[in-house]
Amino acid sequence: MKYDLIIIGGGPAAISAGIYAGRKKLRTLLLTKEWGGQLNWTNLIENYPGFESITGPELVRKLVSHLKKYQGQDLEIKEGSEVKKITVENEHLIKVETGKSYQAKALIIATGRNYKKIGITGEEEFIGKGVSYCVTCDGPLFKDKKVAVIGGGNAGLEAALDLLNYASQIYLLEFLPQLTADESLQERVKNNSKINVLTNVAVEEIKGDRLVKSLVYQEGDSGQNKEIAVEGIFIEAGTIADSFVVKNVIELNQEGEIKIDAQNKTSVRNIFAAGDVTDVSAKQIVVAAGEGAKAALSAYQYLTTK
Amino acid sequence: MKYDLIIIGGGPAAISAGIYAGRKKLRTLLLTKEWGGQLNWTNLIENYPGFESITGPELVRKLVSHLKKYQGQDLEIKEGSEVKKITVENEHLIKVETGKSYQAKALIIATGRNYKKIGITGEEEFIGKGVSYCVTCDGPLFKDKKVAVIGGGNAGLEAALDLLNYASQIYLLEFLPQLTADESLQERVKNNSKINVLTNVAVEEIKGDRLVKSLVYQEGDSGQNKEIAVEGIFIEAGTIADSFVVKNVIELNQEGEIKIDAQNKTSVRNIFAAGDVTDVSAKQIVVAAGEGAKAALSAYQYLTTK
Repeated sequence: MKYDLIIIGGGPAAISAGIYAGRKKLRTLLLTKEWGGQLNWTNLIENYPGFESITGPELVRKLVSHLKKYQGQDLEIKEGSEVKKITVENEHLIKVETGKSYQAKALIIATGRNYKKIGITGEEEFIGKGVSYCVTCDGPLFKDKKVAVIGGGNAGLEAALDLLNYASQIYLLEFLPQLTADESLQERVKNNSKINVLTNVAVEEIKGDRLVKSLVYQEGDSGQNKEIAVEGIFIEAGTIADSFVVKNVIELNQEGEIKIDAQNKTSVRNIFAAGDVTDVSAKQIVVAAGEGAKAALSAYQYLTTK
Repeated sequence: MKYDLIIIGGGPAAISAGIYAGRKKLRTLLLTKEWGGQLNWTNLIENYPGFESITGPELVRKLVSHLKKYQGQDLEIKEGSEVKKITVENEHLIKVETGKSYQAKALIIATGRNYKKIGITGEEEFIGKGVSYCVTCDGPLFKDKKVAVIGGGNAGLEAALDLLNYASQIYLLEFLPQLTADESLQERVKNNSKINVLTNVAVEEIKGDRLVKSLVYQEGDSGQNKEIAVEGIFIEAGTIADSFVVKNVIELNQEGEIKIDAQNKTSVRNIFAAGDVTDVSAKQIVVAAGEGAKAALSAYQYLTTK
């Protein structure tokens, strides 16, 4: 069975590409580990135009339900598929292996991003034992407990604000002398007495026995080490492109993002890419959705004009 | 009063740019003639991810309501504003004139597109007297009447399908030997006995006295002229970028579209552009919304890094 198009991913870029491919009646296979990508890590979304305020999981449900309208004869979907290997046979044949093997004339990579680890002592050891990268996933575990959030960008502040629903006290730690998040988020954080903002601090070590007990950081001004008692530590240090599976197949930039042109073409003629896995200038849900549409239309053009 | 940013336009690109500028707390002025742009010309939208099926006017309402959440101290909105002249004074000062005069450090052009005229005899004469470019606007006027749609692309087929709600019979005329619309639209049109598809025909003249009475076309095969009695003629010949106001200010391509780079920068440092007025590779609602977000984030970066 040879498809016109295989789409890899389950976030807004992949789903949008799937909707557009479905409408164009391309024989399409969408392979994804799971639905939603980074949408699952965020609680409230207020910047996807058309939805003034919607939770991540709710937007995922709407997007997936929209996509599945096109499922059937032309669009096939395989959830729970992890792509292990991609081989470009020629300009009209690509092999994609997940355990099973699939063939298509063209490919869209929309695999998004994963969270980034910060590499301090104790981080790996305490993952799932107090260390988390996802407030939406793990926030409720820290009801009435003291927690720390590491990172003063949008993700960090959003995490801290989400944690207000659960934690009794929140330390927000940022290495730079100031927070870098949107002004509107900064205002909400600074006006809340449950959040202690610590800037110009370097996190040093996560301590505990079976579970996390404290976080050690160094003050930039005094050079002194301080230790705060916390049971949860949310690391919001940003994300990294999930491009591992194509790293020897197509050209990436220094950050590991897939290089694309204005039509979402990559360095290989029959591979297109869209969304946060690419070097697109803004990593935003609506941008990813737009890029997915563009990639599908470019693939359609490639497939229909020889 | 000098703004950080002026946004010109009222469609998905401009609205998305406004939402993002508002969230970044830029002192922003949005100037628009009206809301929605091309969304007002289309009835049912099924390809804006998250809304499986929504009318143009309903999506406009949702987008405008979302935008207006940010209206107030930072975001100012002036509806009913037609921009007459734009003058770039220097890299940090642009003058925008609507009758009143406004100043800003940076500008986003998101003026979208207008419908294209086809230039046949009778077209200008009968505008508003049977000739229309907008089924959503004028379709209901042709209840139980015979009408023609000129154009076999997506817009033409969508127009024909919309007209099924009103007209008694619909002729769909296309110059090329085949329709060029999405397969899914073609299927719906071809399966409907109220729509007569005429391909390989050249429209010649619109006839009438006070109102439209007929359409004359030439058959490509026989070379013969034919005349069909219709009271309404919907011209769906595509659209043209609404870039007139910046045509001597920034660089356009041969189609009159604003040339942008991947960060929505134009040929002038403090002017950005987004959506269907630009040379972006896909003219789609979700793409325009994504481009608006990108343009606002690029403008924000320009304004905050000197």
